[in-house]
Amino acid sequence: MEDRIKSNFARQGFMRTLGAELVAVEKGKVIITCPFTEQLRQQNGFFHAGVLTSIGDSACGYAAYTLMPDHSDVLTVEFKINLFKPANTERVYALGSVVHFGKTLVIAEALIKDHKEEVVLAKMTATLICMHNNIQSIAN
Amino acid sequence: MEDRIKSNFARQGFMRTLGAELVAVEKGKVIITCPFTEQLRQQNGFFHAGVLTSIGDSACGYAAYTLMPDHSDVLTVEFKINLFKPANTERVYALGSVVHFGKTLVIAEALIKDHKEEVVLAKMTATLICMHNNIQSIAN
Amino acid sequence: MEDRIKSNFARQGFMRTLGAELVAVEKGKVIITCPFTEQLRQQNGFFHAGVLTSIGDSACGYAAYTLMPDHSDVLTVEFKINLFKPANTERVYALGSVVHFGKTLVIAEALIKDHKEEVVLAKMTATLICMHNNIQSIAN
Amino acid sequence: MEDRIKSNFARQGFMRTLGAELVAVEKGKVIITCPFTEQLRQQNGFFHAGVLTSIGDSACGYAAYTLMPDHSDVLTVEFKINLFKPANTERVYALGSVVHFGKTLVIAEALIKDHKEEVVLAKMTATLICMHNNIQSIAN
Repeated sequence: MEDRIKSNFARQGFMRTLGAELVAVEKGKVIITCPFTEQLRQQNGFFHAGVLTSIGDSACGYAAYTLMPDHSDVLTVEFKINLFKPANTERVYALGSVVHFGKTLVIAEALIKDHKEEVVLAKMTATLICMHNNIQSIAN
Repeated sequence: MEDRIKSNFARQGFMRTLGAELVAVEKGKVIITCPFTEQLRQQNGFFHAGVLTSIGDSACGYAAYTLMPDHSDVLTVEFKINLFKPANTERVYALGSVVHFGKTLVIAEALIKDHKEEVVLAKMTATLICMHNNIQSIAN
Repeated sequence: MEDRIKSNFARQGFMRTLGAELVAVEKGKVIITCPFTEQLRQQNGFFHAGVLTSIGDSACGYAAYTLMPDHSDVLTVEFKINLFKPANTERVYALGSVVHFGKTLVIAEALIKDHKEEVVLAKMTATLICMHNNIQSIAN
Repeated sequence: MEDRIKSNFARQGFMRTLGAELVAVEKGKVIITCPFTEQLRQQNGFFHAGVLTSIGDSACGYAAYTLMPDHSDVLTVEFKINLFKPANTERVYALGSVVHFGKTLVIAEALIKDHKEEVVLAKMTATLICMHNNIQSIAN
């Protein structure tokens, strides 16, 4: 399962663009981290909310995917994020975990934390769907 | 006002990383676009949801910011996005517009569309706050 | 189709409790209204947000249901509502409409308006699922 | 503080309409419960999602309000709820708690549980605002 997650993650060009790394994978839980660079900043020099959201979405997706069968794929249906404070930190961590695993849909959450994994900067809730078919031709 | 928006946008290193451009600015409305590259892909070769979300968030933020006073700043409080279908397109457009301008908070929406601006790929609703103070020391 | 919606609505004891009425049904659109009473107030004498939300959720659900096959059922997966201003009005209208009809999921929105259907008090986005099986034994 | 919460709750006609009771109040946490009746049902005989949402919204609001100054008031800015499974239970509990207390806004969550407080039926995240002024004339 861990190999499946890692090889899937490696195919995400966007995670590489962010400098994001998958630092922990277990059943129903995933941690992704990403260091601050000028390439990821918003107008005031903090992490852009889009960066937090992108690793949060991936953390939710992979947390869900750890519980899904081989040869399936996972798609995000929707998510909501609350940004608690500006992400003025040298690194962010997204801790994704599954909160409900239903027949069709999975609900996962991600906490976005600072470089010490102490301060919660944002919190996301995502709804994901397990796709058993060829993903190329699918809409949810 | 347009100059203020453009110079603010130019300070967003992350928008440059995405190859995003501000293509329209008017009172309460902003359009941002971004071409597909391998650097922005998810595991199946489509745009990563984080890219759509990032330009959507910026489009909502700048749409709100067009209506705010000089020397203010805008922060995203929270947003929610529904992803209607995989973003299998060569370019995406985020059309942000203000739907409610309150005393403290602004509600904006963004439609994320394909390269022909025909198919709606995703829809976002965001809550933003106008900051009158020095943003460096602020949490919402 | 209209009969199916109306008979389904009539089985909702909670809509009766709210004094809610289904005032318009067409393909992909539904309007529900509800008059103000002391029984529906919050602490300041306005409509409780829960009332707006309840008729909004039903308006989204029935808007989706107008497009679903006979003998199916509709369940709300999740929704998000932004409350623009206190609902200090003698009657509210929830105008539900479908914005995306996918293979498994439907996205609908509801505008909650005042008694003149002029002022938007709140806006909701909902994700719904079509259930083909016996609803009694189902979780999404 | 507890008296302030209880007297505020008592002014909510809608909570009485639902048969809802405030069963626990402490700093940053509130529990509200409500028994099933035919008056609260949706089309399949379960609790209407609007009921879960209404007590969840109130639980979030009062959890936030426990931390706010006297003579202030609390308004819900927005919330999002994920409904995990049909609420086929004789009673529901909404456990509200504050997850972030900012300068202007408060983020709270509510878990909606079954009659044994074991099964999570739904989870809500809400953004609230503290109003220091006369609520009668205010929009957020």
